[in-house]
Amino acid sequence: MASGVTVAVVGATGAVGQTTLKLLEERKFPVKTLRVFASERSVGKTVPFHGEAIRIEQLGPDAFKGVELALFSAGSAQSKAFAPLAVQAGAVVVDKSSAFRMNPTVPLVVPEINAHALRDHRGIVACPNCTTIITVMPLKPLHDVSRLQRVVATSYQAVSGAGVNGIAELRHQTQAWARGEAIIPKHFLHQIAFNLIPHIDQFGEDGYTREEKKLVDEVRKILELPDLAISPTTVRVPVFTTHSIAINAETEQPVSPTRAREVFAQFPGLRVWDDPAQNRYPMPVVVEGQDACFVGRIRHDLSHPCALNFWVVGDQLRKGAALNGIQIAERLMC
Amino acid sequence: MASGVTVAVVGATGAVGQTTLKLLEERKFPVKTLRVFASERSVGKTVPFHGEAIRIEQLGPDAFKGVELALFSAGSAQSKAFAPLAVQAGAVVVDKSSAFRMNPTVPLVVPEINAHALRDHRGIVACPNCTTIITVMPLKPLHDVSRLQRVVATSYQAVSGAGVNGIAELRHQTQAWARGEAIIPKHFLHQIAFNLIPHIDQFGEDGYTREEKKLVDEVRKILELPDLAISPTTVRVPVFTTHSIAINAETEQPVSPTRAREVFAQFPGLRVWDDPAQNRYPMPVVVEGQDACFVGRIRHDLSHPCALNFWVVGDQLRKGAALNGIQIAERLMC
Repeated sequence: MASGVTVAVVGATGAVGQTTLKLLEERKFPVKTLRVFASERSVGKTVPFHGEAIRIEQLGPDAFKGVELALFSAGSAQSKAFAPLAVQAGAVVVDKSSAFRMNPTVPLVVPEINAHALRDHRGIVACPNCTTIITVMPLKPLHDVSRLQRVVATSYQAVSGAGVNGIAELRHQTQAWARGEAIIPKHFLHQIAFNLIPHIDQFGEDGYTREEKKLVDEVRKILELPDLAISPTTVRVPVFTTHSIAINAETEQPVSPTRAREVFAQFPGLRVWDDPAQNRYPMPVVVEGQDACFVGRIRHDLSHPCALNFWVVGDQLRKGAALNGIQIAERLMC
Repeated sequence: MASGVTVAVVGATGAVGQTTLKLLEERKFPVKTLRVFASERSVGKTVPFHGEAIRIEQLGPDAFKGVELALFSAGSAQSKAFAPLAVQAGAVVVDKSSAFRMNPTVPLVVPEINAHALRDHRGIVACPNCTTIITVMPLKPLHDVSRLQRVVATSYQAVSGAGVNGIAELRHQTQAWARGEAIIPKHFLHQIAFNLIPHIDQFGEDGYTREEKKLVDEVRKILELPDLAISPTTVRVPVFTTHSIAINAETEQPVSPTRAREVFAQFPGLRVWDDPAQNRYPMPVVVEGQDACFVGRIRHDLSHPCALNFWVVGDQLRKGAALNGIQIAERLMC
């Protein structure tokens, strides 16, 4: 594949799509031809790529002719409608939406964890939800030391998880506040500036949100632990692009914080940032724009002999979405 | 005590002190004479109270002559130095600092939970840490249904917990951002606007902060459960005055969400705000300025047969501090 790949980016003007284009450049992905697709209102505009202006095209039944790799981040409905057409046209699809994640014939992949699942793909590979990816990154090396028994995961999720509109909303609300004006929610159900919204995606009858259900289902699928006990709480916070998760993880045998630090540090894509004496711990302002997920505040659980507490932070647009997609594509194509 | 009480407010210009003065007015506390104390730079200035300008005095050995009730919120060092003098002068001290909380001869009181402990005071009653109060409010009625076994508490704490300087810091950093200027941390160790800081108070050798240790020790003392298993994580968030805590609580017997809602609703000072279908759940913007702690997102733990998840939000300056202090004073004096 020395001459490169014909790549389609679907949802190119979205927050994840824009980061995908940036990462294709940064990582020197062997792009022969780039095709970009977005919603109707963007068609005819251009996006920059390696110094060229690439014209945005409209999705349609014949859009994927000649495309070898299609990176989808245009939402679930678009993925359901167009990913199968891309596969028919001969492309491999890496899909960032939730459309196919729990489909048993579709691999759900975090390359550092279960790249082996890529072998079985039938044209579509699903990329997990952002909070899932950042949560599962430290869980895997811990599980490899001692089998996970139960996980309580409590998230602090950036507005970028709601896309460019989410980012714009926090910016606009904060600017309105600074001008002394009233804050009027448009994209989120409630004010997000200086507030917390413990509601991401729709509620189910059991009181859990789909975001919380995704975390449970997807972590189980990625770790191939269909019965893993996971207790999720997901909360939107006034942070721009970086998700944080407080994790309480119970293992079969006790794992010392020192041992956890060792295996976290050795795990690709994970960076230990844990020196309280130097006031060093992962924070959104430290991790924004970074590829690695940062883990810190690693300590014995005071309430359980076989549990640890830690705090993991990842850039939602990078490892939480676009980067994980590109890493899958690199394994598939390069 | 129909003619009223001579009250001293120590730390009257702080965030909690200001709220204390507001609540003494709001609740028509029977104040005969009000004395206000603050740090040296405020001495001679005035604070308004029931339409009068009360002159701020300097603390000193003889400051408390004639004072019957002294409400301290000037920090631990001031409490250690002056609370015993106030007691010697004949006053009852309600102390908001951490100075005496774990002293076995000092009651640590949330009036809805353990007002009975007030009987044994020897002049000083301690008011718990803000996060402790808001966390313990729903734990008590749940424990009364079925004995608590283990609690995982993960906090989202407002900047008001760091006092007026904390509030000013979030305001100034956000205004700087809105003007396109660099954000330079002054009061907090790191940027707080659009960031999360998983570090409140000093770190201990085991990797826990004192804020986290306080939560464990104080909840145990208030509930009179010295061995209760509690796993704390405390995080500063860019919210002005309202703390939120995600609680995972394991009980001896299963407690249904319906039963939990019932006992929460009946508990004084707690308000159930839990209707996902109407997008109703506790949030800082809903709870700011409210006296009650709001609890919602009440649901079965998916990972444990005898555990519940819920989300409690309380105004840090009201129930988290000043209000709890005044409620103690009302029980003592009225």
